Amino acid sequence: MTIPTSGHQLQSRVSSAGKLELWIEDVPVAAPGDGEIVVRMEATPINPSDLGLLLGPADPASFRVEGGKTVADIPPARLASMAARMDQALPVGNEGAGTVVAAGAGAEDMVGKTVSLVGGAMYAEYRTVRAKDAVPVPAGATAADGASVFVNPLTALGMTETMKLEGHTALVHTAAASNLGQMLNKICVADGIALVNIVRSDAQAAILRALGATHIVDSSKYDFEATLVDALADTGATLAFDAIGGGDLAGRILVAMEAAANRKADGYSRYGSTTHKQVYIYGRLDMRPTTIGAGVGMAWGVGGWLLTPFLGRIGGEGMMRLRQRVSDELKTTFASHYTATISLADALKPDVIAAYAKRATGEKYLIDPSR
Amino acid sequence: MTIPTSGHQLQSRVSSAGKLELWIEDVPVAAPGDGEIVVRMEATPINPSDLGLLLGPADPASFRVEGGKTVADIPPARLASMAARMDQALPVGNEGAGTVVAAGAGAEDMVGKTVSLVGGAMYAEYRTVRAKDAVPVPAGATAADGASVFVNPLTALGMTETMKLEGHTALVHTAAASNLGQMLNKICVADGIALVNIVRSDAQAAILRALGATHIVDSSKYDFEATLVDALADTGATLAFDAIGGGDLAGRILVAMEAAANRKADGYSRYGSTTHKQVYIYGRLDMRPTTIGAGVGMAWGVGGWLLTPFLGRIGGEGMMRLRQRVSDELKTTFASHYTATISLADALKPDVIAAYAKRATGEKYLIDPSR
Repeated sequence: MTIPTSGHQLQSRVSSAGKLELWIEDVPVAAPGDGEIVVRMEATPINPSDLGLLLGPADPASFRVEGGKTVADIPPARLASMAARMDQALPVGNEGAGTVVAAGAGAEDMVGKTVSLVGGAMYAEYRTVRAKDAVPVPAGATAADGASVFVNPLTALGMTETMKLEGHTALVHTAAASNLGQMLNKICVADGIALVNIVRSDAQAAILRALGATHIVDSSKYDFEATLVDALADTGATLAFDAIGGGDLAGRILVAMEAAANRKADGYSRYGSTTHKQVYIYGRLDMRPTTIGAGVGMAWGVGGWLLTPFLGRIGGEGMMRLRQRVSDELKTTFASHYTATISLADALKPDVIAAYAKRATGEKYLIDPSR
Repeated sequence: MTIPTSGHQLQSRVSSAGKLELWIEDVPVAAPGDGEIVVRMEATPINPSDLGLLLGPADPASFRVEGGKTVADIPPARLASMAARMDQALPVGNEGAGTVVAAGAGAEDMVGKTVSLVGGAMYAEYRTVRAKDAVPVPAGATAADGASVFVNPLTALGMTETMKLEGHTALVHTAAASNLGQMLNKICVADGIALVNIVRSDAQAAILRALGATHIVDSSKYDFEATLVDALADTGATLAFDAIGGGDLAGRILVAMEAAANRKADGYSRYGSTTHKQVYIYGRLDMRPTTIGAGVGMAWGVGGWLLTPFLGRIGGEGMMRLRQRVSDELKTTFASHYTATISLADALKPDVIAAYAKRATGEKYLIDPSR
């Protein structure tokens, strides 16, 4: 057992000069204390939830290499909101998987195992963590299989769990052909939950149809509103998870839910239906303001939804139950598909950044820091 | 004891021809059954919550008298949303008070008492109700004193109760110099709850200052945002009740709450503060879409708030506790002030409609149907 003493780590900094800087630094690897392990990272995804920290509010078209760093310009109007991270070098990467290469006292049996990790700074050659925070991948699974077992799987399961916790019986999902959306479809098909998928193209609809999705509505079509109301009336969905965030889509979903609820109403109510209609915004593919128009009635809500507070809400036992399901169905329901596997150095190339910064539906990149 | 057989009742109808029609009809008075009473209505307020049913989406500038009715035009674009009430004559008036003039078996002891009622169709000479649904006014109080004991008092108390139920410790209120806002100030002063009042003029600020309000912020001033963040940081308010609804005010409040929360943050969080920030929209003084801009973080919510579901949430005992407080403080905390007392016939005059349809802050009209 050789304990590595230093390794590469990706750094992101917003400078007060208005630049976003990315570079790879050789940082010391913490020696494993009692109950700790050192993991050589071999697979760590670039999730939409990583891009905010990684690229900040930089103009994606402006990335170039300057003085050994990859830099981009930050529009002046967006610099003010970055005060809290200004001029700090920050490590990036929410989750990943790799091989245990060293261990402290009491964790020696972990050496050689492939484990999944969550918690930041995963875009690095090595991570030292507590052994009890590492989740061994199931037999026959690789680091790539175990790279994305937290963020997307737990978010998708968090949607159906939130549905049950808050008394809804069916769901709506936007940007529905994403990796996450595909997982959610598999969960809903398996669990018998009706799901209305909102997509933006025929190609996206085809992806979901192949997974057995029954309700697919295309927001780019002229009859979107009418089709959506039909799907909502058919499924009874009163809860939506929205990855778009900005613009009028969240409001249009609420208006359609209200119209579907009023189809069943027996008489005029000045306040609209008494059915509570909820949209949770969990992503921001569209950075414009969120607009809620007239016609939603009074029994509605829109709000942010994040995985961490949800996990806090269901507690340790709830989390273990969800993790077990992810492990049991790792190669089926929760399998992730990657567009390409790249090295840490690749992740800093302007043309590669341009590709993953697009957040194109269904495209996802995997970094192998050991390359 | 003479039982009236018919009486005047105000009617509102949206016609498929695109007109709103108001008139007074002589309707039969239901004879009181066992446990029922007949109340001669003497004081019934025109609340903002009555105006939606009363005036519908009519253009307030177009009211005129035609063929014995008061009529107004409905903009064609707004007629579609009225399908559920089309061509139906609807009675109006959420609450009121009057004298019991007749009673069925078992309720004879109520005759002669002044009672408060809630439940619709109060813009009428007589209402037949169950005796147990009528709340006798306290000794020394008149029908005018007892006219507004439900909607505004229970809504104002509902705000502080919701604050406690949902784990907040201070409040924000918009259109804060309204009758409701004045009540809320008295409740908060009495109960030691910090309240940030958002007003739109110096005159409104003066009304609240005279009631002991400590935090008053004027949205018409150039330094509104900065003053609001200071007030939010000072009070720790993370829950707002908004009577405006449309436009960007709800979003600006959330952004200011997030800024106040981040003043206390110790380090950068890419998702913003973890403090949940909530705005409940309980009125629609502004009919434009609600716009939530960037800068709210992820821990936020906006939604509709209505009295009836809130009362359902606190249950019968909770409601009795609130009602008792209203009764105990009827002439102080919960005293309403009326701009004028008018007859049913006055309420149909185009110039009077123009006055009450303005929803001017602090102005409120009382109808005495017995005139």
